[in-house]
Amino acid sequence: MPERYFQHTFENGLALLAEKMPGMQSAAMTLLVGAGAAFDPPGGSGTAAVLSDLVLRGAGERDSRQLTDHLDSLGLQRSSSVGVHHTRFGCAALASRVIESLAAYADIVRRPRLPEDGFQAARDLALQGLSSIEDEPRQKVLIKLREWHFPWPFGRNTMGEKEHLEKLTLDVCREHQAGSYHAGGAIIALAGNIEFDQVHREVEKRFGSWRPRTNPAPQRIPPPGRIHHEARPSEQTHIGIAYPSIEETHEDYYLMRLAVEALSGGMSGRLFTEVREKRGLVYNVWAGYNSLKGYGSIMGYAGTSSDRAQETLETFTGELYRLADGISADELERAKIGLKAATIMQGESTSSRSGSIAHDYFMRGRIRTLDEIKAAIDAATLDQVNAFLKKNPPGPFTIVTVGPKELKVPA
Amino acid sequence: MPERYFQHTFENGLALLAEKMPGMQSAAMTLLVGAGAAFDPPGGSGTAAVLSDLVLRGAGERDSRQLTDHLDSLGLQRSSSVGVHHTRFGCAALASRVIESLAAYADIVRRPRLPEDGFQAARDLALQGLSSIEDEPRQKVLIKLREWHFPWPFGRNTMGEKEHLEKLTLDVCREHQAGSYHAGGAIIALAGNIEFDQVHREVEKRFGSWRPRTNPAPQRIPPPGRIHHEARPSEQTHIGIAYPSIEETHEDYYLMRLAVEALSGGMSGRLFTEVREKRGLVYNVWAGYNSLKGYGSIMGYAGTSSDRAQETLETFTGELYRLADGISADELERAKIGLKAATIMQGESTSSRSGSIAHDYFMRGRIRTLDEIKAAIDAATLDQVNAFLKKNPPGPFTIVTVGPKELKVPA
Repeated sequence: MPERYFQHTFENGLALLAEKMPGMQSAAMTLLVGAGAAFDPPGGSGTAAVLSDLVLRGAGERDSRQLTDHLDSLGLQRSSSVGVHHTRFGCAALASRVIESLAAYADIVRRPRLPEDGFQAARDLALQGLSSIEDEPRQKVLIKLREWHFPWPFGRNTMGEKEHLEKLTLDVCREHQAGSYHAGGAIIALAGNIEFDQVHREVEKRFGSWRPRTNPAPQRIPPPGRIHHEARPSEQTHIGIAYPSIEETHEDYYLMRLAVEALSGGMSGRLFTEVREKRGLVYNVWAGYNSLKGYGSIMGYAGTSSDRAQETLETFTGELYRLADGISADELERAKIGLKAATIMQGESTSSRSGSIAHDYFMRGRIRTLDEIKAAIDAATLDQVNAFLKKNPPGPFTIVTVGPKELKVPA
Repeated sequence: MPERYFQHTFENGLALLAEKMPGMQSAAMTLLVGAGAAFDPPGGSGTAAVLSDLVLRGAGERDSRQLTDHLDSLGLQRSSSVGVHHTRFGCAALASRVIESLAAYADIVRRPRLPEDGFQAARDLALQGLSSIEDEPRQKVLIKLREWHFPWPFGRNTMGEKEHLEKLTLDVCREHQAGSYHAGGAIIALAGNIEFDQVHREVEKRFGSWRPRTNPAPQRIPPPGRIHHEARPSEQTHIGIAYPSIEETHEDYYLMRLAVEALSGGMSGRLFTEVREKRGLVYNVWAGYNSLKGYGSIMGYAGTSSDRAQETLETFTGELYRLADGISADELERAKIGLKAATIMQGESTSSRSGSIAHDYFMRGRIRTLDEIKAAIDAATLDQVNAFLKKNPPGPFTIVTVGPKELKVPA
């Protein structure tokens, strides 16, 4: 039986990860470039967002139209996004087409044309996207939660800031692309119906001579406070809650994940049953683990009618505090089954796996195998989970609300 | 090589579909019950929505808590939703667990407890969900578009109406459950790592004696008009456009799908390039085929800043009219590749496949194989697609807008 996983680091710093998935016809690729929003230039919030669009408007031998047509003619299901640490380009298709697309993606990140007319359109769209958030309070509360929870620039809105985008120039974009799109810290991950030799050769050919620079670490500034309210005339109130947790590389990581699963996994999770099912307080409530490098957090959301918002906030924080008293053997058992089931389902999606192995490498420097994850989940005992919860009570809370009036934050 | 597909209709009218997917460990189930929003009692819009929650609050030997815990202890990733024709229950997990869950799902649809306290919470949540739409204009415009495009009750908001939900009683729910949850017209579809014999036996055991009634077809009332505006103080305007198309069973179905793919598939689709990329008019624009039984439609959306809304509407309808002039050979080629790639990707997801084979049976009375779909796409010629487009120009349009001011509808 051939090995399922493959890992190689090229001399220029580019990491290549690959996973062979039996039974698949497709493959998926995730390409992470170290140009996340945290590295946007001072006064240039949104540069990465504009660039992530602009680099696709012509690259190498192809102009914008030719590039788009070429990628679509490979049948690629494409996506791109800007995160805190990286700009991400992803695609999925028949495996041979994904391999074929590597040449075009090398053009996109190494030889983008960055045309003037494309810049105007890309910046306009970034501004439009930003103002559309005013009509999406559920998204807005989570953006604001990050701004008030993480130190700057890790809490930056990855979509940018209006004032910065309005002043952004093509020259700044060109300079930032030259300075932040390089092999140092870049990760390319493929999963699906692939041959390691072929992938290795093709990635070496297309990316092997990519510049090796890396970004300097940005300076950190603490967030402005922990409690924030945005007034909005509406009958709804949107609540975002966050508090620090352990990092993903911590030895107690799986204990924490199991506890969060008992809190908010499946339909039997405490938040769902206590806040939603029993009390009918909210139409949407969840909490989950959020992982940045250097910052593990628990983040949660509740959306409710404004007359129930105060009770919802109190019930929500009440459930978080109650978690410190420990979970039951039944809850742990269901949490284990739920996490393992999710692992199995993700193991059947080439897109999930290419994203996961890229993330693993960034966080841990290596791929976690599916068997390793399942074994770690199985090994956790109730005593361990409850000892972890006792040692790590929730708080201090960052609480952001969007709605007609401010809430009283529980002591 | 064993057959990939299985189809059987029980004496009570229940249809069982199954698809064996090599290489998968998981399976997914889709259960469609003929209790869609179109069948809600007069004055009782939202009954199906409340019921879809209420039937999960205890069934057979299990009370609400026991049922939730049981389903989560199988590791099921669950969902449920109310559509026009059906209420849908779905799950995915390790294949053996999905088979095991059939007994509980039979309890849910055949022996729900429908408790009083659960009814209050389910109705409260339905009301909360409905009012949350006021904060989601992007969803709201599509809900309103359906109301103004389809004859009643097919355009009904599947979430219900506020006034009806406020007056809804448990008795009405109980009566509606008894009258609309039955084997006649119900469909159960499994896809993944399954054995047909075992699935057949288990479904027969759990659902074989389910009542055979079917719902009478509801009377139809034409929509109130074709142009509708909802005033909303905001800097954004949300535009919904719909016009009639052929039904899914029409012989020209794949020609239409290829044309829609050229219009709005991939990043090279006309709407994306003309409305978004070139002009930077909107942050989100799309059009797609919408299939109800008896009503094929093309539906589209554009979200934009209000000062660009008029130009966006005109460009959007302009692109729809321009489609009647035909597409190019290159566009057709990319459309074929795009549709086939999407088919391959869906063929690797147990959840997608269980949903697709259930939908196919409802629309066509049989499963379309993946090979059949690919062959039909390949067989379409440019002359056929363009003859279809010439014979079927767009219109009459239903146009719904949500924003600060009404737009001038192009002639």
